[in-house]
Amino acid sequence: MITISERGKNMPSSPIRKLASFADAAKKEGVKVYHLNIGQPDIETPAIMMEAVSNAHLKVLEYTDSAGILSFRKKLAEYYNSKNIDVDYNDILITIGGSEGILFAFMACLDAGDEIIVPEPFYANYIGFAMAAGIKIIPITSSIESGFALPPIESFKEKIRDKTKGIFICNPNNPTGYVYSEDELLQIRDLIKEKDLYLFSDEAYTEFSYEGKVKSTLTLEGVEDRVIMIDTFSKKYSACGARIGALVTKNKEVIEAVMKFSQARLSPPTLEQIAAEAALGLPADYFEATRAEYKNRRDTLIGRLSKMEGVYCQSPQGAFYAMAKLPVIDTDAFCQWLLTDFRLSNTTIMLAPASGFYTTPGLGKDEVRLAYVLNQTDINAAMDCLEAALKAYPQHLRK
Amino acid sequence: MITISERGKNMPSSPIRKLASFADAAKKEGVKVYHLNIGQPDIETPAIMMEAVSNAHLKVLEYTDSAGILSFRKKLAEYYNSKNIDVDYNDILITIGGSEGILFAFMACLDAGDEIIVPEPFYANYIGFAMAAGIKIIPITSSIESGFALPPIESFKEKIRDKTKGIFICNPNNPTGYVYSEDELLQIRDLIKEKDLYLFSDEAYTEFSYEGKVKSTLTLEGVEDRVIMIDTFSKKYSACGARIGALVTKNKEVIEAVMKFSQARLSPPTLEQIAAEAALGLPADYFEATRAEYKNRRDTLIGRLSKMEGVYCQSPQGAFYAMAKLPVIDTDAFCQWLLTDFRLSNTTIMLAPASGFYTTPGLGKDEVRLAYVLNQTDINAAMDCLEAALKAYPQHLRK
Repeated sequence: MITISERGKNMPSSPIRKLASFADAAKKEGVKVYHLNIGQPDIETPAIMMEAVSNAHLKVLEYTDSAGILSFRKKLAEYYNSKNIDVDYNDILITIGGSEGILFAFMACLDAGDEIIVPEPFYANYIGFAMAAGIKIIPITSSIESGFALPPIESFKEKIRDKTKGIFICNPNNPTGYVYSEDELLQIRDLIKEKDLYLFSDEAYTEFSYEGKVKSTLTLEGVEDRVIMIDTFSKKYSACGARIGALVTKNKEVIEAVMKFSQARLSPPTLEQIAAEAALGLPADYFEATRAEYKNRRDTLIGRLSKMEGVYCQSPQGAFYAMAKLPVIDTDAFCQWLLTDFRLSNTTIMLAPASGFYTTPGLGKDEVRLAYVLNQTDINAAMDCLEAALKAYPQHLRK
Repeated sequence: MITISERGKNMPSSPIRKLASFADAAKKEGVKVYHLNIGQPDIETPAIMMEAVSNAHLKVLEYTDSAGILSFRKKLAEYYNSKNIDVDYNDILITIGGSEGILFAFMACLDAGDEIIVPEPFYANYIGFAMAAGIKIIPITSSIESGFALPPIESFKEKIRDKTKGIFICNPNNPTGYVYSEDELLQIRDLIKEKDLYLFSDEAYTEFSYEGKVKSTLTLEGVEDRVIMIDTFSKKYSACGARIGALVTKNKEVIEAVMKFSQARLSPPTLEQIAAEAALGLPADYFEATRAEYKNRRDTLIGRLSKMEGVYCQSPQGAFYAMAKLPVIDTDAFCQWLLTDFRLSNTTIMLAPASGFYTTPGLGKDEVRLAYVLNQTDINAAMDCLEAALKAYPQHLRK
């Protein structure tokens, strides 16, 4: 009998998307579903991006260079330079979303069986990329009570062994919204130097920090050849569907290896590169309005959550996610129930159960991730749902 | 000392793209380079595709379903139905080019260490995907003298062992242009049934067959759960830069597993899916003109090659590639010399050295792949270059 692969069997479903069929079923019944499960912002994509595509008037939709369109890479280098990050276009490869950047970083730096240490909870798709690359993620648990701050650096040291090749952070963090302090980043820097490790850093949300600027790992001194930074246009410009990201590193050997993986898949999508290049022409203050909007949404969300009985949630400093502890035993069941059974004036809410963001078994069972990617009216409506649902749920369980 | 991965070191450079820097240097000097190295057609992308993108007027460039846009998958199913391939949209997942389809097929069906048998020469990037997936390609050599027909089925049987999980074919073939006969396909069918194997089939060039229709592996009876077909919009619609492909199989377990890998990378690019969906609205006779054009180009190319002393090349029946044996010892060196040293009225030609399409060491050293993706005037000009270069090369070697 023919069978699928072990990795195909073991590959987890996305905690963000696995309840999608229940949401679809609810929508078919005419129910309005508030999506706080996925980081798909409702912010308008800058018109300049779509215009650039229309105005390109390409006769032939050709492959681009495997590294990405040269003028685009050069402008992206200027964008980093404007943030005091000292890179040039040779340090940048355009990838198909941050997703591909992470996969390529793993492929180029790590071999099957190698290990990386990742503070948990972490973006669940890292597990998928790790499984595709055959590497192992060793989690170090950060706690909701500490606001998901970096766990003590000693706890990293305890996990480091021969097979450990790197540390992976996401800053600002998805799913926690935590922004690492400069001091925490310096501790990580010293550790990777001492232990001869790579530092992989997912900086997708770097423009969304509400209490001060984020320090890029690319500015850490003395570890320039160890840092692999992954960026994306998805969140910055509300262009998730563009699937345009970048892998940035001063390590030439890594660039060369990633380039070979890039050549195998030929090139990133051409039209979306044109759109992304155009976005880099936006004025420097473009992010201010978006940042202010997300900050207001955050405050609305956290304000509402903090008033719900039994709910615990600190105010996140960055990204557009919050992790909340709910007064339920199993958020997987609760989130499914929200879609299948709970209705408030024919509306309901979709959340991401947090267990999928942890790899330590049993953790996160009473937590959810909320993406504040909807306008404040919708966030309030979604919070009305959640509040009513939390009151109704115990009764449902007793049935 | 921090090092890159073994797979990063072992990953081959693309034989199609590895000479690109020499071509760039020549162009900087003002030299006109005829690109017969890469399957990037000069055929205009149907205007309907670009118009659909402009007319979409998306306010937010959102993620799509990880499986691809539903209406797009449904129309793609209709396209296959119109070719008497019995699939529905549930059998189809949209991928980021055929490239990703191949990688996902490997990931979902094969584990690290598994083996697949592939007739060589084969599309070089299969090596990259195999390396990324940690699987091993076992080549079976087809010969230029037999026009690269399927090697005797007995030679496949000799290579099959415990670790063998599948056969991989490309039909019409890249790089050889060979189109497998129905009889050959039935032999493969019987083999995979007898030996309990998958059949992976890259059918990127199925619309480009010049002596009759191509039989899709999806129409092979009795092996419906064993066939994984990979398709792409790149060549059909001259939309290489769209990076839109599809993985098609009746095997539900494989679809489920691939779907998990698809979810990890979120979704294929949105704009390009819109463009590809629009292409499916083209009239059924759309391919006739393109096919006629390629056939004329092929005849021009083969006509010229057959008149060159010491060159051996049969007329390929499909795709838009020809493999030719040249009177040189090492086509890698020759192709590089064409770019660095040879000029004919300030023009030169770029070819893909064939050694990269073989994995058996030493094979293909005197062969090149030529992509007839230029108009006939340019093909003739390129052949003028090649003819003159082959005359000049022995003299260069004596220096």
